[in-house]
Amino acid sequence: MSTPPLKFRNHSLLLLDQRKLPTQEIWINCDDEKKVHWAIRVMVVRGAPAIGIAGGYGLYLGMKKFKGSAVAFEKRLFQVSAYLKSSRPTGVNLRNVIDRIVIRIQRTAHLPVASRLKLLKEEAMIAHQEDDALCHAIGRHGQKLFKNGDNLLTHCNAGGLATSGYGTALAVFFACKEAGKKIHVFADETRPLLQGARLTAWELVKNRISCTLLCDNMAASVMRENRIAGIVVGADRIAANGDTANKIGTYGLAVLAKEHGVPFYIAAPGTTFDFSIASGKGIPIENREEQEVKNFAGTQTAPKLVRAANPAFDVTPSKYIHGFITEEGVLRPPFSQSFKKIKKKYKPE
Amino acid sequence: MSTPPLKFRNHSLLLLDQRKLPTQEIWINCDDEKKVHWAIRVMVVRGAPAIGIAGGYGLYLGMKKFKGSAVAFEKRLFQVSAYLKSSRPTGVNLRNVIDRIVIRIQRTAHLPVASRLKLLKEEAMIAHQEDDALCHAIGRHGQKLFKNGDNLLTHCNAGGLATSGYGTALAVFFACKEAGKKIHVFADETRPLLQGARLTAWELVKNRISCTLLCDNMAASVMRENRIAGIVVGADRIAANGDTANKIGTYGLAVLAKEHGVPFYIAAPGTTFDFSIASGKGIPIENREEQEVKNFAGTQTAPKLVRAANPAFDVTPSKYIHGFITEEGVLRPPFSQSFKKIKKKYKPE
Repeated sequence: MSTPPLKFRNHSLLLLDQRKLPTQEIWINCDDEKKVHWAIRVMVVRGAPAIGIAGGYGLYLGMKKFKGSAVAFEKRLFQVSAYLKSSRPTGVNLRNVIDRIVIRIQRTAHLPVASRLKLLKEEAMIAHQEDDALCHAIGRHGQKLFKNGDNLLTHCNAGGLATSGYGTALAVFFACKEAGKKIHVFADETRPLLQGARLTAWELVKNRISCTLLCDNMAASVMRENRIAGIVVGADRIAANGDTANKIGTYGLAVLAKEHGVPFYIAAPGTTFDFSIASGKGIPIENREEQEVKNFAGTQTAPKLVRAANPAFDVTPSKYIHGFITEEGVLRPPFSQSFKKIKKKYKPE
Repeated sequence: MSTPPLKFRNHSLLLLDQRKLPTQEIWINCDDEKKVHWAIRVMVVRGAPAIGIAGGYGLYLGMKKFKGSAVAFEKRLFQVSAYLKSSRPTGVNLRNVIDRIVIRIQRTAHLPVASRLKLLKEEAMIAHQEDDALCHAIGRHGQKLFKNGDNLLTHCNAGGLATSGYGTALAVFFACKEAGKKIHVFADETRPLLQGARLTAWELVKNRISCTLLCDNMAASVMRENRIAGIVVGADRIAANGDTANKIGTYGLAVLAKEHGVPFYIAAPGTTFDFSIASGKGIPIENREEQEVKNFAGTQTAPKLVRAANPAFDVTPSKYIHGFITEEGVLRPPFSQSFKKIKKKYKPE
């Protein structure tokens, strides 16, 4: 059970064009680093973990035809890695995956180029497999929170498409189903870019998980009229105190969850925790183009002269969060204690 | 300051085609009852009060060429009124306006047809003027709640376009501006039909009221990051205990308002109160086509196979409501006391 957004086959990276979902399933073949750079930039591939994995393969694709000296190899490796990182300057996973591969390959200067290229490819595959393992561990821990017949709710797409294929929030739903629990998922459409309608609903239908699509403003009524066993969403960044940045609308959902007595969970790997940031106040919020709110699919929906807000994210204070579903288990309050597991694991080398 | 959706000129009803807003302003000439019926049915005109007014004029237009006996006159009057009411079977205002005119005209059987037609036209104009007076009274009372520099927030379109031109929730904003108070209005786009983006933003821009358009899921962040002096929305129906049915999303906003300490007001004329319904539990909720949620501006946004919820309304329990802004003033809790004014005024004759 999964919906992978990428495949590595015959020295090429195949990317599912997520811009075309849910109406078309088109795979794009990326044969070199330029194609990968383009695919990240135009959002053929999206979701921080998936972008990181694509970047790792992109590094291999940019090097695979290399012939020359060890010095020239190193120079080219830096060029390609800098170039790929420029495709998404704020992408923490992208930077982390590429930097780690570069550091490891640097240590192999004594080997012939052909061997180093083989290792480079293997490192890209390791990054890919590691993400898959993280997602499955999240699912394994998360599914224990829910039981047969539960109604769940999610926002945006923290799905297979955003990762190697199993997702974070959606990993929990996939794992519930794999454990034989029948669940029903309410999926917010998630304006303005509709990742819930386009991607999450597509993944759930694809994996035969019972699902109802909602406009974002219907979630409160759904919580009042259905017993919702839990809300599970992903995270963009988690501060040291547990304040969590995620797709716009997450904070409002968390407040509504509190009012309705619905447990609110964040599903995210340890790599999403940023202990250098004390609280949500330290998380910068990206404001995107007004046009995303004033238009849809080429149709103008608002007067030309009106201003529009378009914050891409919001910050949910930790007090609204019942637990973080990570690969290390479900971390409960007080987070200052439970986060220690993650902090230790990801301590800088 | 107003944005009227209809004008009565030279024995014809002109309707602003609200389906074409905000990109085109097209007025449609309705010369007979059939055109009015069509315009209500396809939503050229929308908003319960505006539909009621259009129905009143429609009755006149359906009779204006009548020549015949008093008995035939009466028969035709019933036919046209039943026909017009069928254009929106759930429209309470439509039924009320038409029934009242019919009752009053029935009392004039002693007059020649020409005089009765003149009275019929006058009754339609009276219904129109009465709505305008109600809206202005709502604005007059409501503007006292706010002061220069206030940020306000609204949902859907309880605007001039839904009434004779001055609106209910928007009447408050218009009256603030007319009283010399500079306000800023955050307007929810209001999925799925985007009445906020298409209509409210258009009205505010048109009347030069400073405005920011939001996706519905951004309202929580806006409340946290801006001091919001009040949320003002309209109502579809108000139960005897103050529970209020309004456009989907209103209930969630009310919960968010409570969490952020923002006063939450309903602006509505006394005609919207339904004392035959004890509480919100008695208000039926219309569920509309899934296609409205699975499409956006004509583009498919969700997988064909996914189910979608589409309740048109939700019910906000009275405990979340700080006051009802009516033509009789702002009614505060306990509503069992303050509603008496309205109950008395609208007592069945």
